[in-house]
Amino acid sequence: MPASQLDPPNASSAGRKDAEFPTVGMVGGGQLARMTAPAAMALGIGFRVLAADPQDSAAQVVPDTVVGSHESLDDLRAFARGCDVLTFDHEHVPTEYLRTLMAEGVVVRPGPDALECAQDKVVMRERLSKAGLACPAWAEVKDPQDVVAFANEHGWPVVVKSARGGYDGRGVSVVHAANEAATLMEQAAPGARWLVEELVEFAAEVSVQVARSPHGQAAVYPVVRSVQRDGICREVVAPADLDEHIAVAAQALALEVAREVDVVGLLAVEMFVTSQGPVVNELAMRPHNTGHWTIDGAVTDQFEQHLRAVLDLPLGDTSALAPWAVMVNVLGGDIPQMYPAYLHCMAHDPGLRIHMYGKQVRPGRKVGHVTVMGDDLQDLLERGRHAAGYLNGEITQ
Amino acid sequence: MPASQLDPPNASSAGRKDAEFPTVGMVGGGQLARMTAPAAMALGIGFRVLAADPQDSAAQVVPDTVVGSHESLDDLRAFARGCDVLTFDHEHVPTEYLRTLMAEGVVVRPGPDALECAQDKVVMRERLSKAGLACPAWAEVKDPQDVVAFANEHGWPVVVKSARGGYDGRGVSVVHAANEAATLMEQAAPGARWLVEELVEFAAEVSVQVARSPHGQAAVYPVVRSVQRDGICREVVAPADLDEHIAVAAQALALEVAREVDVVGLLAVEMFVTSQGPVVNELAMRPHNTGHWTIDGAVTDQFEQHLRAVLDLPLGDTSALAPWAVMVNVLGGDIPQMYPAYLHCMAHDPGLRIHMYGKQVRPGRKVGHVTVMGDDLQDLLERGRHAAGYLNGEITQ
Repeated sequence: MPASQLDPPNASSAGRKDAEFPTVGMVGGGQLARMTAPAAMALGIGFRVLAADPQDSAAQVVPDTVVGSHESLDDLRAFARGCDVLTFDHEHVPTEYLRTLMAEGVVVRPGPDALECAQDKVVMRERLSKAGLACPAWAEVKDPQDVVAFANEHGWPVVVKSARGGYDGRGVSVVHAANEAATLMEQAAPGARWLVEELVEFAAEVSVQVARSPHGQAAVYPVVRSVQRDGICREVVAPADLDEHIAVAAQALALEVAREVDVVGLLAVEMFVTSQGPVVNELAMRPHNTGHWTIDGAVTDQFEQHLRAVLDLPLGDTSALAPWAVMVNVLGGDIPQMYPAYLHCMAHDPGLRIHMYGKQVRPGRKVGHVTVMGDDLQDLLERGRHAAGYLNGEITQ
Repeated sequence: MPASQLDPPNASSAGRKDAEFPTVGMVGGGQLARMTAPAAMALGIGFRVLAADPQDSAAQVVPDTVVGSHESLDDLRAFARGCDVLTFDHEHVPTEYLRTLMAEGVVVRPGPDALECAQDKVVMRERLSKAGLACPAWAEVKDPQDVVAFANEHGWPVVVKSARGGYDGRGVSVVHAANEAATLMEQAAPGARWLVEELVEFAAEVSVQVARSPHGQAAVYPVVRSVQRDGICREVVAPADLDEHIAVAAQALALEVAREVDVVGLLAVEMFVTSQGPVVNELAMRPHNTGHWTIDGAVTDQFEQHLRAVLDLPLGDTSALAPWAVMVNVLGGDIPQMYPAYLHCMAHDPGLRIHMYGKQVRPGRKVGHVTVMGDDLQDLLERGRHAAGYLNGEITQ
């Protein structure tokens, strides 16, 4: 280790050469914060991260990283002190803490009222249903009997969701009968809250990202198609191959949701495209996996757009740079050593855009993604899937 | 300042979560190193920087920054210890130190023999002339009489250059008569070495970037046109609007230069397009100002390409993403506060790509650049110039 190692940066200077340029603090040190760092660099703003561990994905690459807990008000308060705006790489910060910080003068974007819609599915459904925005039929349920009553009206199977804590398919179950509902709900922690939804028949799962700034400017990205497996997003095709009027309806719905929940920053609205049109499935209030294609494939990527939105800067052009972009997640496989595979993939496909998150490989864990862009969708799908499969060891040639 | 401030990273872990992924060390903490950081993040490799000052452009954003001097062998040695490959954001490292480090087992790319061609214009001209590669007529000169003798053969005015230390037009003078040559050369430090060149009549100044890896794979970028003012690159148009056969000749010449000087990494070959075809003006062995458009405008940007080349990874696709890209440098103006102007520019042009370097504004200093892409070159030129002019205060509406 060199003798002249740089002293740790401090809040008054690091990443903020020019005092007039603001600093954004992002709570959470995952890959979303990691991929926000380049956007902050280009904008010339300060960027700091609150990470749980110094080896977190973003902590590895952001000098102004503070190690602390997003569940500690003291840590949040200390972190916020060096920031002009507080924002998030995940939705797990207790909103009561955010309200306290706001009362103390911290600028929190998105705000707690909006964030609750991404934290709590009952709150989200209530808010959207009240505003008349298209959702699947749903009901809050207390016990398996409520689920049966809902199914008697809407038919089996139904989807039972925990109101909070769901992520990458966790907390969401397709339930075919009363006894399944009973088993599921009995396993839960006391006090867990639930909702039940009709199982929607859909032609496609799509996602629409909207950026919205404090004074209400909004910019919408092209509708993308997402392919899920085991509740985890596996690939994204931009744009979704939809009839123009359906795509426009999906974008309009996303813009209405953004306004209704009064989000500031990026909002991803995951939707089902049904015979009745698009209906809202889930919300995420941050850059999102279904927007990773924008790093390589759009004029303004979702990470820069999020920063611009939370800083109340004018929003950037959301246009795509190529007719098609395909993003495929790289999930950890059985091979812990990824570098040789990565070299092979680069040799195989010079147009491949590889993004690694600096995360230890564990089976099923998102450790990176690849993007390819061009004119021929089928070719792109083959190239993207080959690379992702090769990187995690599913494909060996 | 928060109590839980992260400890400084150390070489064994920072930016290098996965031990199998290599670490590249870049000597120099300027904007080129700063813009290399995002490429290193995406590749998932480790990236460390040797910066002269903790407030240097790259030091602000790279956690694994070491403060030290590129002119100290001890600092270079300590820095190199944590790196798998040593590379450069400038060409000012003494080559004798690099030879010492190589003898000690450090991997240096580009190597000192190649770097000398970017450090010393006499060495470069000798090497290229010997290989029969097109250069302006030139001669090494010891005194003003030698300049006069050269001018008697090639005509006045001539260009007198110091062999070393030139940068952004410094060290290069157009000389019209013997007394000017005398004045110029008398001011120089004792031992300064000089060359004289014919003043080339050119139709365009262009630049061609080549990436070359240790086993000789080479990838060439589209030829771009650069517009210089007072010896400083002001704007770049990609591609240069040249007849196809001239563009191909320029790319071929750049590839020949790369092979001849045995560069590893990025090489920018600045050329004059004359009635006889392209001739070599200057070389730079690193990512280069004339390649900044590739961040937004090419499949693989020059910074990632440099990392891939020095790591001997397969090189990426150099294709442009739009018919035209225009990059305009933002030079420091009279306005030290840039944020309000920057906000205005974003509002004015949502397609504008802004890149700030985190540098204190000083008149004439490169503090950032803007890029715009599209179909209509005239429109792009107007937009790029407007934004750069507005940012430095030359334009106020």
